[in-house]
Amino acid sequence: MTETREADAAAAPALPVAGGDTVTGLLAEIAAIGVDRVRGGYSRPVFSSAEHDLRAWYLAQASKRGLQVDTDRNGVIWAWWPGEPPVDTSAPAVVTGSHLDSVPGGGAFDGPLGVASALVAVDLLRARGVRPVRPFALTVFPEEEGSRFGVACLGSRLLAGTIDPDRARSLTDLNGDSFAEVAARNGLDPRFVGADPEALARIGTFVELHVEQGRGLIDAHQPVGIGSAVLGHGRWKLSISGEGNHAGTTLMADRKDPMVAAARLVVLVRDTARAHPRARATVGRLQPVPGGTNVIASRVDLWLDARHMDDAVTASVVAEIHAGAELIAAEEGCTVTLTEESLSATVHFDPALRDRLATVLPGAPVLDTGAGHDAAILSGFVSTAMLFVRNPSGISHSPEEYVEDSDAEAGAAALADALEALLISPVTDTARETV
Amino acid sequence: MTETREADAAAAPALPVAGGDTVTGLLAEIAAIGVDRVRGGYSRPVFSSAEHDLRAWYLAQASKRGLQVDTDRNGVIWAWWPGEPPVDTSAPAVVTGSHLDSVPGGGAFDGPLGVASALVAVDLLRARGVRPVRPFALTVFPEEEGSRFGVACLGSRLLAGTIDPDRARSLTDLNGDSFAEVAARNGLDPRFVGADPEALARIGTFVELHVEQGRGLIDAHQPVGIGSAVLGHGRWKLSISGEGNHAGTTLMADRKDPMVAAARLVVLVRDTARAHPRARATVGRLQPVPGGTNVIASRVDLWLDARHMDDAVTASVVAEIHAGAELIAAEEGCTVTLTEESLSATVHFDPALRDRLATVLPGAPVLDTGAGHDAAILSGFVSTAMLFVRNPSGISHSPEEYVEDSDAEAGAAALADALEALLISPVTDTARETV
Repeated sequence: MTETREADAAAAPALPVAGGDTVTGLLAEIAAIGVDRVRGGYSRPVFSSAEHDLRAWYLAQASKRGLQVDTDRNGVIWAWWPGEPPVDTSAPAVVTGSHLDSVPGGGAFDGPLGVASALVAVDLLRARGVRPVRPFALTVFPEEEGSRFGVACLGSRLLAGTIDPDRARSLTDLNGDSFAEVAARNGLDPRFVGADPEALARIGTFVELHVEQGRGLIDAHQPVGIGSAVLGHGRWKLSISGEGNHAGTTLMADRKDPMVAAARLVVLVRDTARAHPRARATVGRLQPVPGGTNVIASRVDLWLDARHMDDAVTASVVAEIHAGAELIAAEEGCTVTLTEESLSATVHFDPALRDRLATVLPGAPVLDTGAGHDAAILSGFVSTAMLFVRNPSGISHSPEEYVEDSDAEAGAAALADALEALLISPVTDTARETV
Repeated sequence: MTETREADAAAAPALPVAGGDTVTGLLAEIAAIGVDRVRGGYSRPVFSSAEHDLRAWYLAQASKRGLQVDTDRNGVIWAWWPGEPPVDTSAPAVVTGSHLDSVPGGGAFDGPLGVASALVAVDLLRARGVRPVRPFALTVFPEEEGSRFGVACLGSRLLAGTIDPDRARSLTDLNGDSFAEVAARNGLDPRFVGADPEALARIGTFVELHVEQGRGLIDAHQPVGIGSAVLGHGRWKLSISGEGNHAGTTLMADRKDPMVAAARLVVLVRDTARAHPRARATVGRLQPVPGGTNVIASRVDLWLDARHMDDAVTASVVAEIHAGAELIAAEEGCTVTLTEESLSATVHFDPALRDRLATVLPGAPVLDTGAGHDAAILSGFVSTAMLFVRNPSGISHSPEEYVEDSDAEAGAAALADALEALLISPVTDTARETV
């Protein structure tokens, strides 16, 4: 590859090289955006002013690099490397990207690390004089975390057509505003969200770089790893209805308190997951309605996140929790409903692509992950891989999530190595077969 | 009294009589303000735009009646009956009032019923030609529910000097905004909130009319009752800290999940209250931080409301819960802190005033209540009484709270009867001794 690079360098078109930008430097530019002074860390929900500022920053960065920017009808930002020769514009594209939105009180790296690394990878490829023979784009997907509308990877699901657009339009945020309303206020026409087969067909290979959300790279003493699989996972909303009343005037015996039922259910969720080896089940979000100190709640909504490598086990865990919830609710004089908000089967990334990246990145361990990603959605349609960057805290979705500066730059360099290998592959192959 | 009324009528000054207003009619005027379309009912937190609109409406109603309006340095609205003869302006005043703020998703009557009934009582007194010999004022107290800054009856506590103004200034709402900041944005100078001995000394007798928050008047088949006591009650904030992490990547065995600890604590709260006859203990408000579906919480804050007629039992209940919380937190790898936000001893209203009102309102049953009120705060300083109006749902702090139209008007008439008896009492007595 070194020879190819040098041979092509002399003939490379004069594309802007944003020399000097580092991943750490780019992240520093956005460090003040969306700081959550109540929870700590960052709260950058999709279409918030914080996420808007991040998008504006991203568009400026892409423009600075001469990338051709387009926000599609699902709110996905595409930043295309210009299609000069030797690019075969009819070939399947190599695409890399991640997201800018965060969970409430999340860390600085989940999402933005992949976005910043992609920008730095562009700089590195240009500095190396790499001349892609395939189209090449960077993407930013909206609402990856699902922290505003409840469905994770909403942007990639819409693009891929794995969520009914009517359902997406009717999703609501905490204020009761629908995705359709909020999208319309943010320049999208909600009538046109949904499957975009043309956009999907343009992608030959998708690579997402992401901060590791676990301890695999700590244990392996490596800064960068290659993703093999994403655990199947889903979200379910449980809504327990009782009888709202005054906390001071209602005798204990007269109560139908959904908070007590919800509390018993949270304990059941933990006990059920413990009974299934390697299952994970979590209640991280719970909202009493109305939520006053001196008010017995009339309803408690809580959300179950459940995951397992074996999709049948995930289904069993949820079924056991559902049955237990019915029993608990009845005992407390309440009723319960369970609604599936999202469900993703275990995803195994393209093994051929994984193996090819392993040759490009010798020493990088191969890891699976319990976290969902847009890459997992896209892997049902295109050849997909992930790169993980070491997180010395082992903690994510928290202000404590962390990446060392040197690991962040190592991640961008690894991404550039992976992209270079893919971008200079002969276009006679189909993307999937090539990799 | 009938003779006095007729004798005075001829000489009454020409004060405006807002004929035709009914309690039901007045409440209908504010029925659209602060509707909570997510929770149902009303959300009218202090200094919200809804509560602002309610204050504006109230000021207009008071002005329409020729009352002299003043908002004091604690945000309490005073509307004074003009001090024409035969009013002895140096005599202790008769004061009636309630509040306009609500719990989140509360009913239409808790607070506004007493405010509207006071306005209608003014009309009834004028229509009857009553000529007060004592000063007479209507009041509206801010933040009675404590639903924004966490301390119930904040306005009356500040006025009476039962809360340290520094503590009040530093109370924060859900957005992290302090009471000092919010008060300043709403026209109060936060430097001057706190004990107002002059305002307190002006009050001789305080009567608060309120919707009943229980079933006493249903069982008694009466529209109006007389309050005898308010159960001792308090609020404690329990904050459980664990380790925030990703819900998908963290094995169950590696977790320090404060939500599980909080859930076990909620069950303990219920079990502890059940073990003490007639105790009430409730968790109606619970907030996971950060509160994302795919995030193990790093902290859960929850609020305990505990009440009993015997203050020693309340203290025992809270001590048992605190000890249990420490144990549960330790078992879950978490830590817990408990902070007392407010504590009020059981209050017995002035028995002489209660007995006097019983003669004015024959047939009205005498009831205690588990709900806190500004009247209970003031009863430590002035002769205080309450009137309750039947609530056929028995439910309050909920959209289901209800008052029949005829009961609402019966309440205002009873309030007018009570006020009339107090307003025409000879001023040679001190207020407390007179009643």
